[in-house]
Amino acid sequence: MTLIETKFAALGTGNAPGQEIRQSGNGFSGLIKGNPIQGTPVDFSHGDIDAHPPTPGAAETWSAGYALGGAQAYTEYRGLADIRTQVAADLTEFTGAPIDAENEMIVTPGTQGALFLALGATVTNGTKVAVIEPDYFANRKLVTFFGGTVVPVPLIYGDENRDAGPDLNALEAAFHNGVEVLVFSTPNNPTGVVTAAETINRIAALAAQYGVAVIVDQLYARMLYSGETYTHLLACANVPENLITIMGPSKTESLSGFRLGVAFGSAALIDRMEKLQAIVSLRAAGYNQAALQTWFHEPEGWLERRIRAHQAIRDDLLAVFNAAGMATVTPQAGSYLYPQLPKLDIGLQDFVRLLRQQAAVTVTPGTEFSQRDHDRIRLNFSQDHRAAVEAAGRITALAARYAA
Amino acid sequence: MTLIETKFAALGTGNAPGQEIRQSGNGFSGLIKGNPIQGTPVDFSHGDIDAHPPTPGAAETWSAGYALGGAQAYTEYRGLADIRTQVAADLTEFTGAPIDAENEMIVTPGTQGALFLALGATVTNGTKVAVIEPDYFANRKLVTFFGGTVVPVPLIYGDENRDAGPDLNALEAAFHNGVEVLVFSTPNNPTGVVTAAETINRIAALAAQYGVAVIVDQLYARMLYSGETYTHLLACANVPENLITIMGPSKTESLSGFRLGVAFGSAALIDRMEKLQAIVSLRAAGYNQAALQTWFHEPEGWLERRIRAHQAIRDDLLAVFNAAGMATVTPQAGSYLYPQLPKLDIGLQDFVRLLRQQAAVTVTPGTEFSQRDHDRIRLNFSQDHRAAVEAAGRITALAARYAA
Repeated sequence: MTLIETKFAALGTGNAPGQEIRQSGNGFSGLIKGNPIQGTPVDFSHGDIDAHPPTPGAAETWSAGYALGGAQAYTEYRGLADIRTQVAADLTEFTGAPIDAENEMIVTPGTQGALFLALGATVTNGTKVAVIEPDYFANRKLVTFFGGTVVPVPLIYGDENRDAGPDLNALEAAFHNGVEVLVFSTPNNPTGVVTAAETINRIAALAAQYGVAVIVDQLYARMLYSGETYTHLLACANVPENLITIMGPSKTESLSGFRLGVAFGSAALIDRMEKLQAIVSLRAAGYNQAALQTWFHEPEGWLERRIRAHQAIRDDLLAVFNAAGMATVTPQAGSYLYPQLPKLDIGLQDFVRLLRQQAAVTVTPGTEFSQRDHDRIRLNFSQDHRAAVEAAGRITALAARYAA
Repeated sequence: MTLIETKFAALGTGNAPGQEIRQSGNGFSGLIKGNPIQGTPVDFSHGDIDAHPPTPGAAETWSAGYALGGAQAYTEYRGLADIRTQVAADLTEFTGAPIDAENEMIVTPGTQGALFLALGATVTNGTKVAVIEPDYFANRKLVTFFGGTVVPVPLIYGDENRDAGPDLNALEAAFHNGVEVLVFSTPNNPTGVVTAAETINRIAALAAQYGVAVIVDQLYARMLYSGETYTHLLACANVPENLITIMGPSKTESLSGFRLGVAFGSAALIDRMEKLQAIVSLRAAGYNQAALQTWFHEPEGWLERRIRAHQAIRDDLLAVFNAAGMATVTPQAGSYLYPQLPKLDIGLQDFVRLLRQQAAVTVTPGTEFSQRDHDRIRLNFSQDHRAAVEAAGRITALAARYAA
C-alpha cells in the first residue's frame, strides 16, 4: 500500500452510523438461523428526529436568517458575531465559566466539525493523544489521520466503589509518558456515563500539571437524567492552558440537519481552529447559524419534557436487556445504551448485519468505540418509544438464537 | 516554533476574504496621504448576494427538505441519493461526460469542502503537488497542511500568440520531476481566464501519461461570457485514472449561504473523500442539500440575464482600470478581475488596508494567489453595478495618490 492508501485504510466507514445503506447484503446465507422477526424497523444508529422533532421555531429562525441576505450568508469563519455573543452568554450561564464571544468561541459545522478542528489544531505527526476506550469512534480516526499516535486509556463505568470516567492512574501514566493531548466525551458516547466531579477536577489538574491540551466533548450535557449531576471541566479551579469544550444542538435538540456545533476555550486554539476552518469549509452554513438563536431558549418546559420522554425509553430498554441477562450500564445522560451480548457463535459484524436483515434493527458494533468491545452494541434510543422497546425485544431474541 | 505552530503559521487568514473585520485598524497614521474619498462601501472580497440574489425557489426547497424530517437530515455522508441522481444527470448533460451518481459523486459543504476532501484524498507527507500561480489561495495552504510540497507552475494569461492556461512546459517538467497531483481552477481564480481547449486536452494526456491525479476546480464554469468556449477536462478523449472535478452553486447562483458543492470523478477517490467527510463534518447540512434541486433548473432566461448583468459590470470596470493604465486581463468567465497596480511607495498590504480605510473599498491582495503578485489586487465584481464602478474609480484614485 502507498502512504495515502494506508492513511485511508484506517478511516473505514462501513460500520459508521447511517452508512449501512452502502453495505452489500450478500454472504450471510450460510449463517442464517430461523425466520425473520417482524416489527417496525428501527435504526438505532442515530436518533429519530421524526419521533423527537427539532426545537420549535428552528425552521423560522432559518427563514429569518435567509431574509437577512449577505450579512447572514457570509459570516466570519468563526461564525456571526451577534450569534456568538448570544451563545457565549448562554454557555457562560450553563457552564458557570466566563466565555469571551470574540476570542474564545467558534461556530462549526456540527460537533463533528468542532472535533475535527480541535484535533487538527493540536495533533500533528508524532503527537501522542490519550483516547478513552470506549469513546466516540471518530476520536481514534482523527488522531490517526492527523499523524498522531493513540494512547488508549480505559473508561471506568462506575459503581458504588468507583467513580465513572477515565481511569486516572492510566491517564497520569499516559501523561507521564509524553501524551500531549487528551480527548474524551462526557457524557460518554457510547455508554452514557458522566465523568464524576472529583475525576473531572483531577483530570483538569493533571492536564495543567503536565501541560496537556484537553478537548472535552460535552455534546449530550443538557440531557441529564433525574438525580444526576454534571461537572464542567472548564469551570474547575485549576484548568490546563489549552482547553477546548465542544457542544452543539444536534442531539437533545434534534437539529442535526442544520450541522451546527460550537467550540469554546483557549483563544490561541480557537484561532488555529478558525484558520483550519478557512480551508475546510469556510464556515458553518450561514443561514443555518441563525438556528442557534433557539438554543437554550426553548419554550418553557420543552427540555424537561424531552428529558422525561428519553428517561422513560431508557428505563424500558434497560428492563428488556436486564431481563435477558445482557449487562448494560445505566446511562446518566444522553440517549446511548451499550448492552453486552452473550457469547455468540458468529462474529459481531455478522450479528449486526443479521439483526438488520432478520429483525429490521440497525445498531452500531462496539468495535467502532473500542477495538476490544467485540461483545457490545450501541443503541441511540432517541426513537419512537414503543417501536424501540419492541426492537430491543427482537435484539434479545436474536442474541439468544445466535448464542454459542 | 513547535511542529504544529509551524503548520498553522502557514495558514494565515488575516487577508482572507471576509476576515478583514478581524484586522486592527491601527498603525497607518504615518502612511496616510490626503482625505478619505466618499462613496458607497463595496466589499470586493466576495460577491454581493443582495445585489445578485440566490436562485429563485432555493429557500422553498430548503423548507420542503426540512418538512421531510429525518430522511433529509441524516443523508449518506456523500449526500442524499435522489439528489445525487438528479445532479449527476444535470452535470452529465453540462459536461458531456457520463457521471455515475452512486459511485462517482459526493455532495460537500461548499466547493471549499470539495477541495479540502479532494486534496486530503490525494496528498500526504511528501506528496509533490503542482499548483498554478496565480490560483485560488487555499490550494497552496491545503497542500502544505496535508504535508505535501507545492511545485509552482505559472499561469499563461493568454493573448493572440499563446493559449490561456497552465504553462505546459513547466507542467510537464513538474510531472517529470515527481509531481503526483495537479490542482487548478478554470475559469482561473483570480484572473477569470479559461484554460484553452488544446491546453486542457494536453493536461489530460500528460496526467494520464505520468500517472498524475488531477483536481480541477470549475466553480465558475457556468458564467461564461459572450463568445467564449469552455472545455471540460473530464470529457477529454484521454483522461487520467484519478480525476476529480469540482463545481457548486455558491457563485453564479449566489447560494454560498447554503454551503453546497459537488465533486465528481474517479470512484476510488470519491470513496476516500467520503471517508474523510465522515470525520470532518459528516455531510453537507441535510436540509441545505435540497437546494441543489434548483441547480441547472433555474427559471427560463435567468442564467442568461445573470451572465449579461455581470458582463456589463466587467466591461465597465475594465474601462475604468484601462483608462488608469492598470493592466487587467479580460475575464472570460466568472466574476473576478485582477488589475495590476502602478508601482507604489507603500507595500501591497498597506495599500489594501488604506483602500478600506480611506475609500471604503475591500479587495484581496494578489499575494494571496501568488507570492510573486505584489502588484495586483483581486476584485469579485459580482456587486451592485453602479457602486462597483464608483468604487473602481476610488481604487484608481488611491493608486495614483500612492504611486511611487
